[in-house]
Amino acid sequence: MKKNVLVIGAGGVAQVVAHKCAQNNDVFGDIHIASRTAEKCRQIVASVHEKKSLKGPGVIEAHELDAMDVEATKALIQKAGSRIVINVGSPFVNMTVLSACIATGAAYLDTAIHEDPAKVCESAPWYANYEWKRREECAKAGVTAILGAGFDPGVVNAYARLAVDDYFDTVDSIDIIDINAGSHGRYFATNFDPEINFREFTGRVMTWQDREWKINKMFEVRKDWDLPVVGKSPSYLTGHDEIHSLSQHLDVPTIRFWMGFGDHYINVFTVLNSLGLLSEQPVTTAEGLEVVPLKVVKAVLPDPSSLAPGYTGKTCIGDLVKGTKDGKSREVFIYNVADHKEAYEEVGSQGISYTAGVPAVAAAMLIASGEWDAKKMVNVEELPPRPFLDLLGRIGLPTRVKEGESDQPFA
Amino acid sequence: MKKNVLVIGAGGVAQVVAHKCAQNNDVFGDIHIASRTAEKCRQIVASVHEKKSLKGPGVIEAHELDAMDVEATKALIQKAGSRIVINVGSPFVNMTVLSACIATGAAYLDTAIHEDPAKVCESAPWYANYEWKRREECAKAGVTAILGAGFDPGVVNAYARLAVDDYFDTVDSIDIIDINAGSHGRYFATNFDPEINFREFTGRVMTWQDREWKINKMFEVRKDWDLPVVGKSPSYLTGHDEIHSLSQHLDVPTIRFWMGFGDHYINVFTVLNSLGLLSEQPVTTAEGLEVVPLKVVKAVLPDPSSLAPGYTGKTCIGDLVKGTKDGKSREVFIYNVADHKEAYEEVGSQGISYTAGVPAVAAAMLIASGEWDAKKMVNVEELPPRPFLDLLGRIGLPTRVKEGESDQPFA
Repeated sequence: MKKNVLVIGAGGVAQVVAHKCAQNNDVFGDIHIASRTAEKCRQIVASVHEKKSLKGPGVIEAHELDAMDVEATKALIQKAGSRIVINVGSPFVNMTVLSACIATGAAYLDTAIHEDPAKVCESAPWYANYEWKRREECAKAGVTAILGAGFDPGVVNAYARLAVDDYFDTVDSIDIIDINAGSHGRYFATNFDPEINFREFTGRVMTWQDREWKINKMFEVRKDWDLPVVGKSPSYLTGHDEIHSLSQHLDVPTIRFWMGFGDHYINVFTVLNSLGLLSEQPVTTAEGLEVVPLKVVKAVLPDPSSLAPGYTGKTCIGDLVKGTKDGKSREVFIYNVADHKEAYEEVGSQGISYTAGVPAVAAAMLIASGEWDAKKMVNVEELPPRPFLDLLGRIGLPTRVKEGESDQPFA
Repeated sequence: MKKNVLVIGAGGVAQVVAHKCAQNNDVFGDIHIASRTAEKCRQIVASVHEKKSLKGPGVIEAHELDAMDVEATKALIQKAGSRIVINVGSPFVNMTVLSACIATGAAYLDTAIHEDPAKVCESAPWYANYEWKRREECAKAGVTAILGAGFDPGVVNAYARLAVDDYFDTVDSIDIIDINAGSHGRYFATNFDPEINFREFTGRVMTWQDREWKINKMFEVRKDWDLPVVGKSPSYLTGHDEIHSLSQHLDVPTIRFWMGFGDHYINVFTVLNSLGLLSEQPVTTAEGLEVVPLKVVKAVLPDPSSLAPGYTGKTCIGDLVKGTKDGKSREVFIYNVADHKEAYEEVGSQGISYTAGVPAVAAAMLIASGEWDAKKMVNVEELPPRPFLDLLGRIGLPTRVKEGESDQPFA
C-alpha cells in the first residue's frame, strides 16, 4: 500500500484534493501540499482543520515549491516520504513533476495535459507531444503515471471505457458534454485559471470524426441538448484533452467534446480574442514594457476560488454514447450532476473544482490500494472503470445512466 | 508677425498640422516637429516632401524631445527660434510645454485639456484644475496661450460664440454633436490615442444643465439625431472639454456634448470597462509584473494613424443652438462635414485627425497675423470667431449653417 501523498498546486482544485485526502487519511497517511506561494497552501491546511476534514489524527503540511525545478521537487518528495504525487498545479509543470516522480519512484497523476506557455494547440494527438514520449521511461522505472484523472478528462474516459466494454457491441460515436448551469453572480469570471481556460478556446478546435482529425473554429458548431437536471443547454464543439487519448485507445470512429457557453461568455471571449488580448505572445507598450496580454486579463479577472462562496446551481457532465447492442441500435447517456453550493459547504470550493479534484483523489486511492497501480504510464480508459466509478459514488460524484425513459444510478 | 513654428507630437493630428503648416510656410517660416520618437517625426517630414506640401522653399526638421522635460523643451524652442508652439502631443505634456513657452515667450496652443496620467475626470470646471491656474503667469509674461484649438474643443467653441453674438438675443441651450459616420474596416479601433479616447468615457459624464453641473453615467442618455449628409445618428451624452470653458464664458444655461457611438463600439467598450481593462491604475500579474491595463489595451489596438489609408465616409460635427431672436424662438445648427478619404489624399491622415489638426493651424496663423495674438491665456470662445471660421473655410473645413429648410455655407 502506497502511503503519504504530495499535492502540488494551491488553487480551487488543490483545495478539494486536500480536503478529500484528509477525509481519507487512513488510506493516504501524511498529506503535504506545495505550491509557488506557501501562503496559499497554509490557507488550505487551515481550511482542512477548520472544516475538521481529517478522518483521523495525522500530518497535513504546507510547503513552498517551484515545481518547474525538478531537483527541488525530488527533494520534497523524498523529505515528505511521498509515494503518490497528485499534480493539480499549472499544466506548465507536468513534465518537471513527472521527472521528479520517475527519479524517486513515486506514482504520478494529473488532471490536465502538459502545456508549453509559449504554444497553443499543438499537433494531434496532443498526448504524443510530451506525455507519451515518456511511456518507456515510466515502464522501465516501474512508475505509475495516470494522465488526466479529473472529471474531463478522467471520469468521462472511464464512462467511455465502460460503455465500450459493457453497454455496446460496437460504438459509433461518443459525445462528451460538459454543462455548467451554475451562476457566480459576477460580470464575468472563469471557473478555473483564466490563462488555462482561455487557451482552450483560442486555438483550433480538433475533434475525431470518422476516424480522422477534423478542424473547426471555436464557436463555429453549436448543438443544444436537453439534459437531466440542467435542462436545455446550448453547447459548442470544443477541442479537449480526452479526445486525444480516447481516439487512440478505443475503437470508436467519432469522439467529440461539447462545452456549454452562454451568449455573455461568448461575447466577452470574442471581444477579448478579436482584440488580441487573449494572446500568449508578448506585446510592447508605448512605454517599452513587454507584457503578455493574457496575463493582464488574468490579473483583472476574479480569482476563480473567490467565486465559491456565492456560487449556486449545478453542473452536468457526461458521455452520450451511440452504437449497437445485440443487433439493435442503442443510445446511453452516462453522467454526473454536481452542485456548487454543496461542494462549497463540504470542501470550500465551487462545483467545477470539486468535479476535477474528487476524481484525482479517487484515482490516488486506487493507486494506494494497488487496483490502479499500473507501474507504467496510462490514460484513464486503459484502467478498469468499475472500481473508479464505485469509489466516486461513495466519495461524492455518483454516476447515473440514462437510456430512453430510464434514468438510474449506476451500480 | 510671429515666425517659425514648433509642432510637438508625431501622431495623426501632428501629421495634419505639419502638412498644413507646410502648405502655409510663407506665414510660418521654419517648421520643426518634435516627439519622443524622432523616427515618427522623420516619417512626417518625408510625407510632407512626398506630397510636395511645402508652399515655398523652406526648413522642415524632425527632432527627438521628451516634452515632459521643461528644460529640453525650452532649449529646442530657443535653438529653433520658434515663436509659436503647436502642442498636439499627449495631453500629459501640456503643462510642461506651457512652462517652456512662458519661459521663452513663445505662443502656445493645444487641442485637448491637460491630463494627469493617474487621474480620470477631476472636478469641474476641468480647466481650473491645471490651465486656468496659470492665467496670471501668462498675462504677466505677455504670452499667448490658446487652449483647446482643435475641432471639439475649438471650432465648436467658435460656433457657440458666433451663435451667441450674431444669431440670438438669448441662448437657451447648446448641444454640441460629434458624429463620425466613417468606416475603417477593422474589428475595432479608436480614432485617436486609445488611452486618451477611453479615458473620456470611463469617468463620470459631467454636463452643464440649468446652470448646474449634472452627473450621468456613460451611455446612460441616448439621443438620435437626423443630421446633414450623415443622416440618422445615435449619440450619447458625454463629458467633454469645451463644456468646462463655455459654461464659464457664455451666458447659456444648458451646454451638452453628444458623441456618436455604434452598438459595436459600446459593446467592446462595456466588456473592456466592466473587466477593469480600461483602468489607469496598475495591476500585478501572477508573475509579479506591475502593469497598467489600459496601456496593454492600447498596445493591442491598431495605431490610429494606420487606419487612414482605408478610411471611408464622413464626419459631421456642429452646434445645435436654441434660443430667441427678436422675440421669436429660433433653432440653428452650425456645422462642418469632413471626408476621411479626401483628408487622406491631401495630408495622409483620416478625417478625425484632419478636423483636429487644421483648426490648430488656423489658430496658429491668426496668432502669426496678430488677430488672435491675445498676449494672455484664452479659450477659443474668448476670441473673435469670424476670422477663424473664414480662414478654416479657405484651408479645408468650411462651415455651414442650417436653419429649418435652409442649409447654407457660412459667410
